[in-house]
Amino acid sequence: MEDKIQKLLASVARGKVTVEQALEELKELPFQDLTHTKIDHHRKLRKGMEEVLFGQGKSLDQMTEVIRSMKKKGTDVLVTRLDKATGLKLKKRFPEGDYSEPGRCFMIKKDHSIRGKGMILIISAGTSDIPVAEEAYVTSTFFGNETERLYDVGVAGIHRLFQNMALLRKARAVIVAAGMEGALPSIVAGVVGAPVIGVPTSIGYGTSFGGVSALLTMLNSCSTVAAFNIDNGFGAAYFATLINRL
Amino acid sequence: MEDKIQKLLASVARGKVTVEQALEELKELPFQDLTHTKIDHHRKLRKGMEEVLFGQGKSLDQMTEVIRSMKKKGTDVLVTRLDKATGLKLKKRFPEGDYSEPGRCFMIKKDHSIRGKGMILIISAGTSDIPVAEEAYVTSTFFGNETERLYDVGVAGIHRLFQNMALLRKARAVIVAAGMEGALPSIVAGVVGAPVIGVPTSIGYGTSFGGVSALLTMLNSCSTVAAFNIDNGFGAAYFATLINRL
Amino acid sequence: MEDKIQKLLASVARGKVTVEQALEELKELPFQDLTHTKIDHHRKLRKGMEEVLFGQGKSLDQMTEVIRSMKKKGTDVLVTRLDKATGLKLKKRFPEGDYSEPGRCFMIKKDHSIRGKGMILIISAGTSDIPVAEEAYVTSTFFGNETERLYDVGVAGIHRLFQNMALLRKARAVIVAAGMEGALPSIVAGVVGAPVIGVPTSIGYGTSFGGVSALLTMLNSCSTVAAFNIDNGFGAAYFATLINRL
Amino acid sequence: MEDKIQKLLASVARGKVTVEQALEELKELPFQDLTHTKIDHHRKLRKGMEEVLFGQGKSLDQMTEVIRSMKKKGTDVLVTRLDKATGLKLKKRFPEGDYSEPGRCFMIKKDHSIRGKGMILIISAGTSDIPVAEEAYVTSTFFGNETERLYDVGVAGIHRLFQNMALLRKARAVIVAAGMEGALPSIVAGVVGAPVIGVPTSIGYGTSFGGVSALLTMLNSCSTVAAFNIDNGFGAAYFATLINRL
Amino acid sequence: MEDKIQKLLASVARGKVTVEQALEELKELPFQDLTHTKIDHHRKLRKGMEEVLFGQGKSLDQMTEVIRSMKKKGTDVLVTRLDKATGLKLKKRFPEGDYSEPGRCFMIKKDHSIRGKGMILIISAGTSDIPVAEEAYVTSTFFGNETERLYDVGVAGIHRLFQNMALLRKARAVIVAAGMEGALPSIVAGVVGAPVIGVPTSIGYGTSFGGVSALLTMLNSCSTVAAFNIDNGFGAAYFATLINRL
Amino acid sequence: MEDKIQKLLASVARGKVTVEQALEELKELPFQDLTHTKIDHHRKLRKGMEEVLFGQGKSLDQMTEVIRSMKKKGTDVLVTRLDKATGLKLKKRFPEGDYSEPGRCFMIKKDHSIRGKGMILIISAGTSDIPVAEEAYVTSTFFGNETERLYDVGVAGIHRLFQNMALLRKARAVIVAAGMEGALPSIVAGVVGAPVIGVPTSIGYGTSFGGVSALLTMLNSCSTVAAFNIDNGFGAAYFATLINRL
Amino acid sequence: MEDKIQKLLASVARGKVTVEQALEELKELPFQDLTHTKIDHHRKLRKGMEEVLFGQGKSLDQMTEVIRSMKKKGTDVLVTRLDKATGLKLKKRFPEGDYSEPGRCFMIKKDHSIRGKGMILIISAGTSDIPVAEEAYVTSTFFGNETERLYDVGVAGIHRLFQNMALLRKARAVIVAAGMEGALPSIVAGVVGAPVIGVPTSIGYGTSFGGVSALLTMLNSCSTVAAFNIDNGFGAAYFATLINRL
Amino acid sequence: MEDKIQKLLASVARGKVTVEQALEELKELPFQDLTHTKIDHHRKLRKGMEEVLFGQGKSLDQMTEVIRSMKKKGTDVLVTRLDKATGLKLKKRFPEGDYSEPGRCFMIKKDHSIRGKGMILIISAGTSDIPVAEEAYVTSTFFGNETERLYDVGVAGIHRLFQNMALLRKARAVIVAAGMEGALPSIVAGVVGAPVIGVPTSIGYGTSFGGVSALLTMLNSCSTVAAFNIDNGFGAAYFATLINRL
Repeated sequence: MEDKIQKLLASVARGKVTVEQALEELKELPFQDLTHTKIDHHRKLRKGMEEVLFGQGKSLDQMTEVIRSMKKKGTDVLVTRLDKATGLKLKKRFPEGDYSEPGRCFMIKKDHSIRGKGMILIISAGTSDIPVAEEAYVTSTFFGNETERLYDVGVAGIHRLFQNMALLRKARAVIVAAGMEGALPSIVAGVVGAPVIGVPTSIGYGTSFGGVSALLTMLNSCSTVAAFNIDNGFGAAYFATLINRL
Repeated sequence: MEDKIQKLLASVARGKVTVEQALEELKELPFQDLTHTKIDHHRKLRKGMEEVLFGQGKSLDQMTEVIRSMKKKGTDVLVTRLDKATGLKLKKRFPEGDYSEPGRCFMIKKDHSIRGKGMILIISAGTSDIPVAEEAYVTSTFFGNETERLYDVGVAGIHRLFQNMALLRKARAVIVAAGMEGALPSIVAGVVGAPVIGVPTSIGYGTSFGGVSALLTMLNSCSTVAAFNIDNGFGAAYFATLINRL
Repeated sequence: MEDKIQKLLASVARGKVTVEQALEELKELPFQDLTHTKIDHHRKLRKGMEEVLFGQGKSLDQMTEVIRSMKKKGTDVLVTRLDKATGLKLKKRFPEGDYSEPGRCFMIKKDHSIRGKGMILIISAGTSDIPVAEEAYVTSTFFGNETERLYDVGVAGIHRLFQNMALLRKARAVIVAAGMEGALPSIVAGVVGAPVIGVPTSIGYGTSFGGVSALLTMLNSCSTVAAFNIDNGFGAAYFATLINRL
Repeated sequence: MEDKIQKLLASVARGKVTVEQALEELKELPFQDLTHTKIDHHRKLRKGMEEVLFGQGKSLDQMTEVIRSMKKKGTDVLVTRLDKATGLKLKKRFPEGDYSEPGRCFMIKKDHSIRGKGMILIISAGTSDIPVAEEAYVTSTFFGNETERLYDVGVAGIHRLFQNMALLRKARAVIVAAGMEGALPSIVAGVVGAPVIGVPTSIGYGTSFGGVSALLTMLNSCSTVAAFNIDNGFGAAYFATLINRL
Repeated sequence: MEDKIQKLLASVARGKVTVEQALEELKELPFQDLTHTKIDHHRKLRKGMEEVLFGQGKSLDQMTEVIRSMKKKGTDVLVTRLDKATGLKLKKRFPEGDYSEPGRCFMIKKDHSIRGKGMILIISAGTSDIPVAEEAYVTSTFFGNETERLYDVGVAGIHRLFQNMALLRKARAVIVAAGMEGALPSIVAGVVGAPVIGVPTSIGYGTSFGGVSALLTMLNSCSTVAAFNIDNGFGAAYFATLINRL
Repeated sequence: MEDKIQKLLASVARGKVTVEQALEELKELPFQDLTHTKIDHHRKLRKGMEEVLFGQGKSLDQMTEVIRSMKKKGTDVLVTRLDKATGLKLKKRFPEGDYSEPGRCFMIKKDHSIRGKGMILIISAGTSDIPVAEEAYVTSTFFGNETERLYDVGVAGIHRLFQNMALLRKARAVIVAAGMEGALPSIVAGVVGAPVIGVPTSIGYGTSFGGVSALLTMLNSCSTVAAFNIDNGFGAAYFATLINRL
Repeated sequence: MEDKIQKLLASVARGKVTVEQALEELKELPFQDLTHTKIDHHRKLRKGMEEVLFGQGKSLDQMTEVIRSMKKKGTDVLVTRLDKATGLKLKKRFPEGDYSEPGRCFMIKKDHSIRGKGMILIISAGTSDIPVAEEAYVTSTFFGNETERLYDVGVAGIHRLFQNMALLRKARAVIVAAGMEGALPSIVAGVVGAPVIGVPTSIGYGTSFGGVSALLTMLNSCSTVAAFNIDNGFGAAYFATLINRL
Repeated sequence: MEDKIQKLLASVARGKVTVEQALEELKELPFQDLTHTKIDHHRKLRKGMEEVLFGQGKSLDQMTEVIRSMKKKGTDVLVTRLDKATGLKLKKRFPEGDYSEPGRCFMIKKDHSIRGKGMILIISAGTSDIPVAEEAYVTSTFFGNETERLYDVGVAGIHRLFQNMALLRKARAVIVAAGMEGALPSIVAGVVGAPVIGVPTSIGYGTSFGGVSALLTMLNSCSTVAAFNIDNGFGAAYFATLINRL
């Protein structure tokens, strides 16, 4: 693309192409390529954030191919939503990588520099919410954030939350994964000053409606909670990373 | 009904009716009347609880007529779901009664004996939830329970809840009215040993879906909360009364 | 925590720390620990109720570990939502325990004292609702309540309900599990004076929507029914226990 | 249409048109007109049932025009879903007609012959359900059925239902209008042998969802209940009429 | 029960019990037994209709036991919602019975008398709706109705419906099973005078929402259609039987 | 924008700017302006279609201003979703325009050339669906399509549909507006070869859920129907216009 | 049918039957057969479009039978919604056919003439949406349309969409398959003049609700998008074919 | 509270109270007061953010009272969700305040210091979404953020979005208010690196379901968007403020 424009400009400079002709030709050049270049340029500014692969529904070979091409480019790579069997197979193919069973993620990470300004705290309400919290944890770590975990501090163990106020206050952003009634993000947002990001989980039965009950609680929170899709630990951590780099 | 049976038995005793004939006749007697008598007898055991009129959608004259017939029988009467205008008109017609504007109820109560064994505590999360809480309060009082109120102690003012632990612990049953996210009943049930009854209110906007979000929170509570229909302060207080008379 | 405060007070008593210094230090002590102590104290007042494990989604080893630590502390333990295979494995590891196949629960119970004041009656509408009713039955028994069962008395066999009026009237609290249209709790609440707790079950097809239809019936009951989440036999029995200990 | 075919056949008879030409021409004749004739013929077999006007959303003048054209044809007419003001205006324009305020219907009925074989019984659960029940009552009467009413026999007054077993058993079809939890049709279907038609009403609040809760109860009934749309008293009575004429 | 009353009456006749004592004793006799007798008496009037077993979720042994007890009493029996494997096993245990694979029903039927007054017509929209239609067909046959079938006449083959107008007009009641958009019952009700009963089926994908779309179509039909629960072929045929015996 | 590029190219031509500098400068030029130009150019290709104003929620003055600016540019203008009062006021301000009361639209149209290749047929199921059908009619006319109407041909008057097969077959695209059960588009699509566009209307009550029932019917149609949002007559006509210009 | 009429007309011509008798007989002839003929005639006009089999839920033998009968008639045949195993078995039985694994379709196509006037473009938002897009692709090809594909151009790769503007503009109709948020059809409709048909896919998790979220986006599009049922790639391609033949 | 502890410590210092007694007394002191103090202290750290009044449903006098007490304390005050009439009355009572009609907010603001580190950009998709965007704008300004607006840049005017890339890139946080299909936040998040906060608005009709469609789009966004409740412009701006102060 740049080549084409450069050639055109050179022709203008050499008088081989008039200004009018060049203008017409420029208009005909697929603008979208320009657009692409610009967007791409912008993307590079937040480089490292885009090499993430949503693993669910992709074959082992498809993923292997993508990972290989990323390795060639020298970029780190994170694959999310992997069942254990597939995760271990990836680990076998790429022994330098790590598979997180609780977080259902595989990653190859060479750049271990810390790029976020503060600490991101990941909280889970119950033990069943841990997979979603771990997806957030692995993602946050992958993106170079100092990340801490505080698990199983929901309603039944709310005192454990209060016992860790120091940790809570230290956080620059807090992610709270909660299923069932999903009230924990509200409670956390009531006691900390940092932005709180709620991730409803699909944990529960009956009227939990696969996480809808928890999601509604977060959307209707009297405190201020930003909500993400059910089980979307990755999205929450990505968003927290954006905040933490500000 | 009893008369009929008595006459029949007397005829048997006097030999005018054979045992077989009497048996057949007994079978033919409308069983439902017997049923009715029995049920009625049972109802009287919890007398005072049934003279309640759901006011919404009834005309002033319809209500006046019912109240008059109750007055003749000497029973107390409670009318719920009354707008202010109708409530004041009832007050004019029955000056011995009281209209509660916040609770939207009118009642004529002469029997002021306390019939519950302990205290019923009515909690509201926000000021907007007070009408529902007041309906519960008026109902609980009407049914002869010692009743206390603790309002506006929701997430934004949760410390006020904890400042009243003594009151909370004194309660034999707790009713919590909450809209929006509806998390307060869960929190209360986490800190008291008395049964907690949750009443979702229709307060909120958007995804509160007129109280559905709050209801789902209560149904999915990790603590143990018994749920009632949206805005049903009366039902919750009636249920608490049943508990308080045990 | 108590140690710290005790030392501080001792220092005050010995004049090594001034009142002002002690006050500042007290303020700095993590209040949540104090909170925790208080809540914990409160929890002990209703001890025996908290050693319950939601088995669904937990591994055999996780459960084994928790049960062992509870055994060491000498407390009884109840595990709910167990499939048969897992239940029998637990029974093998802890032969002193009992696995209830219909109620899908495992429990080790040494303290067989009756701690509730009256009888809790568990009713099921149909035979398909029995697993939920049995979860309530096992839970109620575990918590030391005299507990009776009356199964399969729904619409098709409603006369069996009426044939057991004596049992119904004896109950201090009634739990009714019903799927499909879920009308039985309403009918029961219409004929008894004790509080009635409705548990919708996920039994049905089509527009039963996995128990939602039954739940709505209970929430909209013209009688007074307290509703719990779909299939939540445990929660209903826990709530009935709270009532029965009043 | 018949004219055209007659002429064609006459031409064939007179040899002016060949069989082949006639066949082609017959095929070209808009078949739908034939269809129409047939359907129309069929419709006449159940004449009297079709002159019903859904009044809601129609202007007074529109309705007046239709009624006038019907009067000219000498057919009876029923207009449903009329508010009081419009109903009284129609009454003024057609003094020979009757406006039913509770049923929100206007009708001009000259043919008072009874055309159904038995009695149709209309039951309402509560007083608030009466408008829907009355729409069914007026409709049933309009279509020439002997019709009886039994109102306000819902859960709170279920003994009144049983006191009227004789009436219930006499019915050839039973229509039950019920809002809130909508359980009455099930109960009725459990005690009568006649077909029971349930009409959920929009009466209720909160989770009654404008009649949806009642409708679900009817659809999930363990007894056998045929369900109609919320508030559709007309449809239920029309259907009962079809049954009653069998 | 009758024994008890007979003895009591005999004692009255013999002067061993006074009228007053007898009256008291009668009141104490569980009224529900009387109720039961009455209901039972009523049930016998429509005998043959109640020996139906909902097979889904019941074990082979449970069903075997029930069938055996019915056989002893000499009554016919129908078991619905049976998968093929279970159906064939029942057939092996009771070789005199018949298993309908398309209708997923097993029945032992000795009384082959026709008890309905006319013919019941079962229509299916598509081939996928046939299982539901067959459940209705088997049920209708079981209850002694002359029953005809007209399958696969939905929108794509609507002309086949019109080709069978004679059959349609002969029917005393029509059952139409339709999934997807569920419009066929409306169309049928538009062209026949007999009552039309719609059974939405769970056939479809995406926004058919497991039959909800078809159900809504039937409930909102401009023609008059009585609706049953999704896939409830049994209920529709039971209801049609009630009509057909009128 | 073009100016800037022209100047830049001229400088290159004159040797005042090097090729490299020009390339950098071109990259810095806001690409979006180029994008805009391109898109705009594209939009002009289908000029006449974009001057439509969604009137709902806009003030009379806001609309007046937009219409005036359009008049200056000499373009036709259509305003949709106008209540009668506002429509008549617009008519007063712009007497050359026309207000369609049934279609709730106002338009100023000077270019009366026919730009579509065939005829667009607008069908309504009931008289209540006419406002939506009229919105489609006015829109279709505004965009220069030959447009015909066929109203009130729903289930109750389906023979009128068949009587107009000639009209149906002449259409190049058919729009069908239907509320309640919404089955008419399916039926139409079953008998014509032209593309059929369904517009569910919000007409109905109870389970019509404001048009959702009709929408689901169209989405699940066994014939092939393209669906638009509830009451979106404008969108359907716009889409039909795109087809008609192909 | 034609035979009967021909004979009748011949009798009229020969004077054996009077005009009146013939008219009566014509009326008695099953009109639906005429209807059928007409409709069938119409169907033949768009022949080739109707030989499509919805494979899901049909047995291999059922499908084999239908395909054989079609082969005899010499018509092409398309079977949709086939899993891989069944597809390959069909391929074995009919080696002249082709099984598309990504599109889950099997087809035997001998007539390869192009019958559409322009090109149909199939776009997929993500790789997971490809099966639905491929169903549309195979269908569009089967019906004789020149068809192009542009996959994986959703939000994350939106620049690839803009890089293919030439292809987009060439299309006579565009089908866009998109899951998750489903915004791509709107974006496409914003930049092309051809009609855009949106197919929501069931791809996503949590609040995607199996495609409902994507569907709602398409229905509420500010651009003009015609929507089809979730995953209905076939329907969209059928509809696009109708457009492309205009 | 502090007084009590101080006295107790003084008594310990003076030897009047033993360490053990003091410890017991400290445990008895209402822990919640301590809690309150701590939380309050924490709240002050983010002072200025809590003096916000949700105006909807509150009376003019109630609001006046709160505002007066805040004025006495010298704190700024913001009242949201005010209709015009009430807003102007507040302005009359507090002439130093400002009423924003488009944002439906009233505020008294004396502290005009900028407290956020960067700029917050508020984007609206359509003109109808402006009230929600303005609520966010007023709130953001009130909390001391430099705030910019970019309105009416939705799908129909997406080029205006791209024309303002410089502004977009300058933002430290972006709030996007969008109704209907709600796709704009996704598009914005695709082109900027700052965190994007989506606010669905209740603008739309039919299947927009009062903002639910827009909300689902944001929750299912392929880009990363944090979602808030429908119409909750305040919450989004509060959350953006938390981010902007980091």
